[in-house]
Amino acid sequence: MRGGTTRSGKSGQKLWSESTQINHDIEIFTAGDDYILDRYLIHYDCIASIAHAKMLARIGILTAAESKKLIKELKTIRVQAADGSFLITPEQEDVHTAIEQRLIERLGDLGKKIHTGRSRNDQVLTALRLYYIDMLDLVENRINELQASIKKFGKKYGRVVYPGYTHTRKAMPSSFGMWSGMLYDSLADDKRLLKTVTRILDQSPLGTGAGYGVPLAVDRKHTAELMGFSKIQNNPMYAQHSRGKFEGMLLHLLSHIMYDLNRTASDIIFFNIPELGYLQLPDDFTTGSSIMPQKKNPDVLELIRARYHTVAASEMQVRSVAVNLISGYHRDLQEMKEPVMKSFAITSASTYIMSIVFQKMTVDRDACAAALTDELYATDEVYSLVKEGMPFRDAYRNVAQKYRK
Amino acid sequence: MRGGTTRSGKSGQKLWSESTQINHDIEIFTAGDDYILDRYLIHYDCIASIAHAKMLARIGILTAAESKKLIKELKTIRVQAADGSFLITPEQEDVHTAIEQRLIERLGDLGKKIHTGRSRNDQVLTALRLYYIDMLDLVENRINELQASIKKFGKKYGRVVYPGYTHTRKAMPSSFGMWSGMLYDSLADDKRLLKTVTRILDQSPLGTGAGYGVPLAVDRKHTAELMGFSKIQNNPMYAQHSRGKFEGMLLHLLSHIMYDLNRTASDIIFFNIPELGYLQLPDDFTTGSSIMPQKKNPDVLELIRARYHTVAASEMQVRSVAVNLISGYHRDLQEMKEPVMKSFAITSASTYIMSIVFQKMTVDRDACAAALTDELYATDEVYSLVKEGMPFRDAYRNVAQKYRK
Amino acid sequence: MRGGTTRSGKSGQKLWSESTQINHDIEIFTAGDDYILDRYLIHYDCIASIAHAKMLARIGILTAAESKKLIKELKTIRVQAADGSFLITPEQEDVHTAIEQRLIERLGDLGKKIHTGRSRNDQVLTALRLYYIDMLDLVENRINELQASIKKFGKKYGRVVYPGYTHTRKAMPSSFGMWSGMLYDSLADDKRLLKTVTRILDQSPLGTGAGYGVPLAVDRKHTAELMGFSKIQNNPMYAQHSRGKFEGMLLHLLSHIMYDLNRTASDIIFFNIPELGYLQLPDDFTTGSSIMPQKKNPDVLELIRARYHTVAASEMQVRSVAVNLISGYHRDLQEMKEPVMKSFAITSASTYIMSIVFQKMTVDRDACAAALTDELYATDEVYSLVKEGMPFRDAYRNVAQKYRK
Amino acid sequence: MRGGTTRSGKSGQKLWSESTQINHDIEIFTAGDDYILDRYLIHYDCIASIAHAKMLARIGILTAAESKKLIKELKTIRVQAADGSFLITPEQEDVHTAIEQRLIERLGDLGKKIHTGRSRNDQVLTALRLYYIDMLDLVENRINELQASIKKFGKKYGRVVYPGYTHTRKAMPSSFGMWSGMLYDSLADDKRLLKTVTRILDQSPLGTGAGYGVPLAVDRKHTAELMGFSKIQNNPMYAQHSRGKFEGMLLHLLSHIMYDLNRTASDIIFFNIPELGYLQLPDDFTTGSSIMPQKKNPDVLELIRARYHTVAASEMQVRSVAVNLISGYHRDLQEMKEPVMKSFAITSASTYIMSIVFQKMTVDRDACAAALTDELYATDEVYSLVKEGMPFRDAYRNVAQKYRK
Repeated sequence: MRGGTTRSGKSGQKLWSESTQINHDIEIFTAGDDYILDRYLIHYDCIASIAHAKMLARIGILTAAESKKLIKELKTIRVQAADGSFLITPEQEDVHTAIEQRLIERLGDLGKKIHTGRSRNDQVLTALRLYYIDMLDLVENRINELQASIKKFGKKYGRVVYPGYTHTRKAMPSSFGMWSGMLYDSLADDKRLLKTVTRILDQSPLGTGAGYGVPLAVDRKHTAELMGFSKIQNNPMYAQHSRGKFEGMLLHLLSHIMYDLNRTASDIIFFNIPELGYLQLPDDFTTGSSIMPQKKNPDVLELIRARYHTVAASEMQVRSVAVNLISGYHRDLQEMKEPVMKSFAITSASTYIMSIVFQKMTVDRDACAAALTDELYATDEVYSLVKEGMPFRDAYRNVAQKYRK
Repeated sequence: MRGGTTRSGKSGQKLWSESTQINHDIEIFTAGDDYILDRYLIHYDCIASIAHAKMLARIGILTAAESKKLIKELKTIRVQAADGSFLITPEQEDVHTAIEQRLIERLGDLGKKIHTGRSRNDQVLTALRLYYIDMLDLVENRINELQASIKKFGKKYGRVVYPGYTHTRKAMPSSFGMWSGMLYDSLADDKRLLKTVTRILDQSPLGTGAGYGVPLAVDRKHTAELMGFSKIQNNPMYAQHSRGKFEGMLLHLLSHIMYDLNRTASDIIFFNIPELGYLQLPDDFTTGSSIMPQKKNPDVLELIRARYHTVAASEMQVRSVAVNLISGYHRDLQEMKEPVMKSFAITSASTYIMSIVFQKMTVDRDACAAALTDELYATDEVYSLVKEGMPFRDAYRNVAQKYRK
Repeated sequence: MRGGTTRSGKSGQKLWSESTQINHDIEIFTAGDDYILDRYLIHYDCIASIAHAKMLARIGILTAAESKKLIKELKTIRVQAADGSFLITPEQEDVHTAIEQRLIERLGDLGKKIHTGRSRNDQVLTALRLYYIDMLDLVENRINELQASIKKFGKKYGRVVYPGYTHTRKAMPSSFGMWSGMLYDSLADDKRLLKTVTRILDQSPLGTGAGYGVPLAVDRKHTAELMGFSKIQNNPMYAQHSRGKFEGMLLHLLSHIMYDLNRTASDIIFFNIPELGYLQLPDDFTTGSSIMPQKKNPDVLELIRARYHTVAASEMQVRSVAVNLISGYHRDLQEMKEPVMKSFAITSASTYIMSIVFQKMTVDRDACAAALTDELYATDEVYSLVKEGMPFRDAYRNVAQKYRK
Repeated sequence: MRGGTTRSGKSGQKLWSESTQINHDIEIFTAGDDYILDRYLIHYDCIASIAHAKMLARIGILTAAESKKLIKELKTIRVQAADGSFLITPEQEDVHTAIEQRLIERLGDLGKKIHTGRSRNDQVLTALRLYYIDMLDLVENRINELQASIKKFGKKYGRVVYPGYTHTRKAMPSSFGMWSGMLYDSLADDKRLLKTVTRILDQSPLGTGAGYGVPLAVDRKHTAELMGFSKIQNNPMYAQHSRGKFEGMLLHLLSHIMYDLNRTASDIIFFNIPELGYLQLPDDFTTGSSIMPQKKNPDVLELIRARYHTVAASEMQVRSVAVNLISGYHRDLQEMKEPVMKSFAITSASTYIMSIVFQKMTVDRDACAAALTDELYATDEVYSLVKEGMPFRDAYRNVAQKYRK
């Protein structure tokens, strides 16, 4: 929330002149939380910078020795990122400045050459895209784990019949095989969408500069290959246009997945109310009340349900930031980092927690059996009459008279 | 807006008793605008009902003769739908009742058999899905047309250099080839998403009943094949769950496409302001002012820009209607028809209008040339120094001193 | 949905030249549905035009006789609007053109004078604002009716104790007096917001022209008084800026009210499930199923619940249309009419229907009594121990051991 | 983003058993970031707890001496909160546990008595509401500062005439007095809304327990007075219902204010493009490009523009979290803290930064004068003819012929 807390420290006003204070306030406002969020990007910026350094040697901007020195330093940073020892200070504002400053600090004039042939714009795009593709892979793995949990749940409880609901009212007999299969199949379709999103993201923006190319014969295919992209994103203006557009697509995918979890959590919360009791949750998944000693509340599932809304709102935010604006980079786009990163964190964690829920949750067979009251079979009665030759509408009216008074 | 206008007519209260009036008000509130919107679905419900009738004969519920009679009647309705002569009255509420009533009216008891083995729920799902797939096809064609227009525009004006912008400020030289290519490539990626969405939709829900199957051995594969679906949506609960979920995916796709048009319209409006004048619009695309006789306003492009928001809001509406609810059909889902249909209409029309814009819009070569001021080439100056061996950061600072006073 | 359906008629292409066809398509796209929506505005545009004509006479632009003639004609239109006989054709596009054309048709050159001293922009703003203020009044009346129904319900059933829920689980004893009082009090606060919104809207925009005033000494205070506004909206640019801003505020208010109804409908749907049965709905409020003859579904309440989302999405649409745009009118703003009008219709109808629900709904005292199980009184047990001197936390733990195994 | 990062540390899995790991993961998922966000609430929870302790003495639950001891400790915590020395650990999860634990740690059994007569639910509601009211006061002050800056700007530049725009095209002469007055007046109306929101919030929820009251004769009026509330929120269920409802209203207000800033920032960015140059920004408000040495970009204004979307998305999130749910507390509501706090921070900071912008920004009188081209006066020409007696429509057509070729 750093982008918001300007002019909080009154004491600062004594030490500084008014205009220094104002400059400081503007800096804080402008930097936002990037220096914190960018910790997740150090690894990816190193990968991209390594590819870039190799390419610069290939086209003769750097010597082989210079390129090696830069790469060695970048690999060190990548290692330090993994163990948390590479830090980005608020003054550096973002990961890209922090890395470039480190390179200059260690390698002097050579460090000043790393930014040749690229702009901050394509550098950010590239690091983010590598990060997104990795996160999508993580989310896919989490979905696979959840599907495995669902399958196990289905094996144990799949044949248990319980009352299926429509309009939040008992309707016809269902089974926990059908119920859990609903989520399984829905996730399978989500993965189809995920694969397409990944394929669309899989194009390297490095070398597009600030959206109008670079006046240097950079070898874009080479860096794309080194980073593992299938192809380059050819049009530099499209590379910039895709900032916001791709994030919207990503967040749609994540909220699409969270939607499944929201509805499933809603089912579990409902089927677990003591009045029904079809599903039982272990104590670890419930929380007490500070005033009512008897309570066992399904907080974990409520939070999964609630966090759908955080991801959906993030989607909306990302989708609307750049709308109505002309093409080309605007600083507005910076505001997309936080909602995207937050949504990846929420979606992967929620999917993981849901797979534990499916492992630990049990079905109360007696409660289910007791709930299978006669009227659930009214449709079967209709079809008995249909099989005897009565037109459907007449059979329906016939049985309806019995149940609806 | 029919769902809203209850109790407007004071006169009605004289003729009716209070309770009749209340019942009437409730009916109006409940029916909403479905009887109007459903005109678009007559064709698709006929296709689905024909497949259903064939299948009922195949499994022995209908005789071959009965099935033929029903199909003949349904084909007549389909023809009448095309010329607008099949009407749905407010009292019938929706297309499904209207068609069933017609069949009963014409065929008596036989008409009462058509609903055997299905529920209103899977019937609606099926008609909508057929409609969606057709509309997606239409949208794809419109995108193809737009891409063709862009290509022609690119051939005529592709080499014209104009100032590319970042932060709404002149940045580096661009060309109308690069500019129009941005939209072309973006639409190409949209079509990849469109194809995946179509593939996910391509599963028949017919035979899933009200979400818990039908107590009759319906042949789902047969109806799926007759309607042209590649496979069946096996899990009945998933068929219901996909109502809302699929619509959200569809609307995301449509707003994804509209986003491209919104940004492109923003560019054209800006590049066309007299102070820049890079792009020129023919008079048919502009509108005057009621107070200022000199004005030529780009209303058509403003409306394309604005209608993005209608589609985006529709996406949000559809995505949130069923959230936090348990599984199984709820009447809430009915409210999705209007936003989806409206969004298809907007997206296909906007794409079509944009393809005309690209056909008719011209580039003012002189205005572009005049705008290519020196500072646009500052980056080239930097790279001249880099090529002479100066580290990038030093070259950058060197040139910066010249331009930033 | 007219704004969407261009190029549907293939036959048209034979009769017309290609360019005529294109012009026609653009016209349809541009006009949208305004000619339909504007029926609601005829009355208000007449009021504003009458005030305008009177003022033009006062400042000497019209003679007293001219003014009278115009006013007489405008009053006739207003009467015809009420009985539906004044029509706006698609060609006229909107109410303002339709009225001006009628005046010219009837009064010749005199009709051409009515637009002196105003722009279409302030004309639209004025008609809409008069309409909004009337609609807010209607909504307030509907809230008053609903509160009256709640009071009656409270008198009948207020003392009936039922289990209050937290986390969708029984928590502590509540009463239907407390439950219905929640909505009553919430609506009371809504009305405080409504009054402020009305007060903010209560400033006349007539005379602000296209947002930069009119080069004529119009008497704005006079027209404001004639139309019943408390003051004028002095700054012409603010008058334009308030388009979109005021609509956002209005729609927030409406969705704020619908939020109360959404949550109340959710309660009624839940308390009415047969497993609980605390509340009972008369048959008129329920609907059957096309496959399950036994079902009684609470469709009316589900639709109230669902229509919150339509209003909330409308709010979002209206709020985002003009965002990121510079000041001054844009055609984009036209797209706000439909969501605002729809939301007024939904909110007033839903409030009205909810007041009938509160009149007709009954409480099942036996079901409530049976549901008041022991553990609901656990908090009372804690407080018995507290009153005996045990610290709260110890008392809590003591009772918790009894209930949580 | 803590709520998202479960199972990140692989190493933990070695040290812990699987089930310990799972419990830990669930804890992290459940706690979210509350332990961080709640730092802002320490002060307010202390105020509420002090009032509560005084009241408990008054009704005889605590002795005067006990009450004093608790209050002394709470005042110490409040002081420590101000200098940052009172910490909330992740294990404590939230401010309320942290404070209660401290009291027990220092005062033993007496500490266990502080929670008598309240629930975590009304405790949270109360602390948040006190915080909200304080933040609204801060926002109002910031608006006052901004209005003062606008007034000064208006004094300096108010008479400078520049071309007013409609449809992003020059329309009629405007002045920077009119332009800045637009924001001034709009903020004045925002403050009217702010005052109403504050008044609606100004009702004490303390003593409503978990939404169904407390089985103890707490003196709610007394605590309300001690905390400075004008009245109590009488209905306990309404107190719970207002969680989410009030936050939605708050966030609407904040996004309503941010909307003004978004549109104003859009104007400044546009009027400052070198092609127009009406407004000039000092260097502190602009940022360079990493590739183009000549660039001066208006990042600060772009970020104000962009952060509207963050607040608008927060509004939507808060508005949708609890929708479709039955009454009574749900854990879902916890997810509202972050968007509300973030939005207060953004709105107050953006308003402050905008007031600096108005202090430092200058008007380029020459650029404005040069832009006042003839056609801007076309409407004046029309009115010259009108004054000579020509009907408006004819005068309009007459002048139009001159300008529209």
